[in-house]
Amino acid sequence: MAEPLFERLCLVGIGLIGSSIARVAQERGDIARQVVAHSRRAETLARVRELGIADAVEADAARAVRGADCVILCIPVGAYAGVMRVIAPHLMPGAILSDVGSTKGSVVRDLVPLLPEGVHLVPAHPMAGTEHSGPDAGFPTLFQGRYCILTPLPGSDPEAAEKVAELWRRCGSMVETMDAATHDKVVAIVSHLPHLIAFTICGTADDLAEETREAVLKFAASGFRDFTRIAASDVDMWRDVFLNNREAVLEMLARFTEDAQAFGRAIRWGQAEFIEDRIRRGRSIRRGLIERKQA
Amino acid sequence: MAEPLFERLCLVGIGLIGSSIARVAQERGDIARQVVAHSRRAETLARVRELGIADAVEADAARAVRGADCVILCIPVGAYAGVMRVIAPHLMPGAILSDVGSTKGSVVRDLVPLLPEGVHLVPAHPMAGTEHSGPDAGFPTLFQGRYCILTPLPGSDPEAAEKVAELWRRCGSMVETMDAATHDKVVAIVSHLPHLIAFTICGTADDLAEETREAVLKFAASGFRDFTRIAASDVDMWRDVFLNNREAVLEMLARFTEDAQAFGRAIRWGQAEFIEDRIRRGRSIRRGLIERKQA
Repeated sequence: MAEPLFERLCLVGIGLIGSSIARVAQERGDIARQVVAHSRRAETLARVRELGIADAVEADAARAVRGADCVILCIPVGAYAGVMRVIAPHLMPGAILSDVGSTKGSVVRDLVPLLPEGVHLVPAHPMAGTEHSGPDAGFPTLFQGRYCILTPLPGSDPEAAEKVAELWRRCGSMVETMDAATHDKVVAIVSHLPHLIAFTICGTADDLAEETREAVLKFAASGFRDFTRIAASDVDMWRDVFLNNREAVLEMLARFTEDAQAFGRAIRWGQAEFIEDRIRRGRSIRRGLIERKQA
Repeated sequence: MAEPLFERLCLVGIGLIGSSIARVAQERGDIARQVVAHSRRAETLARVRELGIADAVEADAARAVRGADCVILCIPVGAYAGVMRVIAPHLMPGAILSDVGSTKGSVVRDLVPLLPEGVHLVPAHPMAGTEHSGPDAGFPTLFQGRYCILTPLPGSDPEAAEKVAELWRRCGSMVETMDAATHDKVVAIVSHLPHLIAFTICGTADDLAEETREAVLKFAASGFRDFTRIAASDVDMWRDVFLNNREAVLEMLARFTEDAQAFGRAIRWGQAEFIEDRIRRGRSIRRGLIERKQA
């Protein structure tokens, strides 16, 4: 077995992602000698103790990060600033601070101003998830074969970034690096806008007259079912994603809306060629995904 | 084995749906004594012959329907009017004419004016499908456990409707009956609008600057992947669906667009409660689907 990457890994938040990291660490043994799990909810910590997936649990965030050479925030991105105010004074010099949030510009915005001298910030985004949440939802193969995007800051310590990259490789992920702004645009179109659409269409259906709504639920064909699969996601996490990737999500929504309106106009005026072109483009992107084995 | 429902069943079009019906008929033996497959494409008929899933193939539509006591149109809905002009004079008195199209108002519009005296029209829509098409794509379990909606016309022969219902029950489907207008609204929201959105978002992504587009393909998270699964569908079929359910699709698109804009506005102005409410509604619709075992 390889030498453990860290002495003491502190997971701030132990839901789907945090508990999956804990499970990998436990299974492999070469992530950290000790894993400490923090949650502000007593019942979550009790459940983590029952599951036996961490070496220690700690209800106090400041105490949890003490002595940790790696701290990973696994909480909704809207909670970062508040938690950072509590833990910043207790972060060990030389420690690595990372996270798993779906927005990265906001991470820089919220963490950098409070970052103590000598603590290395390496933002990360494992592109993996399910529609379930909480410590019971995690599993050790969650990250296998999925991308993890690192967005290290210009001028930050390359050794710290490499240790975080190695952690994710040991979780089974392919690691890619890009700047925070590019990351936020890419996830806005591949993930955040699809979720916005899925949440919205569920509401649109729910607003239909009672009779039609009952039929909608009854006859939900595969199209609508795929949307609702996306829509069954954690409320706090997604609220924070939308609020913390505002500019990119609004830009992608505006582009999409223009395109959807153009599609609608083509339907209204019977423009068969325009419609066929749109359908063909969808198929070609689909083929692109299959070739990349992401579908 | 029960008595076959029909003496001679003619499938006009033998793609995913038509060839699946043919396979059920062959497997069960109690759908029709003889199944005739028609396609205007010689290579399709050659393939059907190779597959051995029909008792006879016939390149001429008029000859194909001759002597058939049941004719089912399994072609894109935009082709109905043209085919009907060819077959109408050759339909047998007392025969049942049915179809499998995803729009039903257009079926009434296109078939009723040409319907010969004594031929019973029973429009049907099996709510089943895959992203594949052609005679090789069909399989005999396609319709099992799925709904099939019949939209018989007011005053039409109940015995004919019952025979078509029984055909679909023998295919494994649950049969429901409603009027064509209600059908068209329901499928506009559960199927047609989701497909419009999926086709559109693929185009929106494809229009992004080269660099971002490459990253989009690389990092397509589960959200976008589900959309592209929907988007990988038959071009002719979907063009015709949009053009033939115009009013209902445009109404649902307008409602959805208003709702998506409201979501975007909430993001812009940081209205957390509005966003949470939308996410929760998505989850509750999802739960509704799970309870109905459609998810």
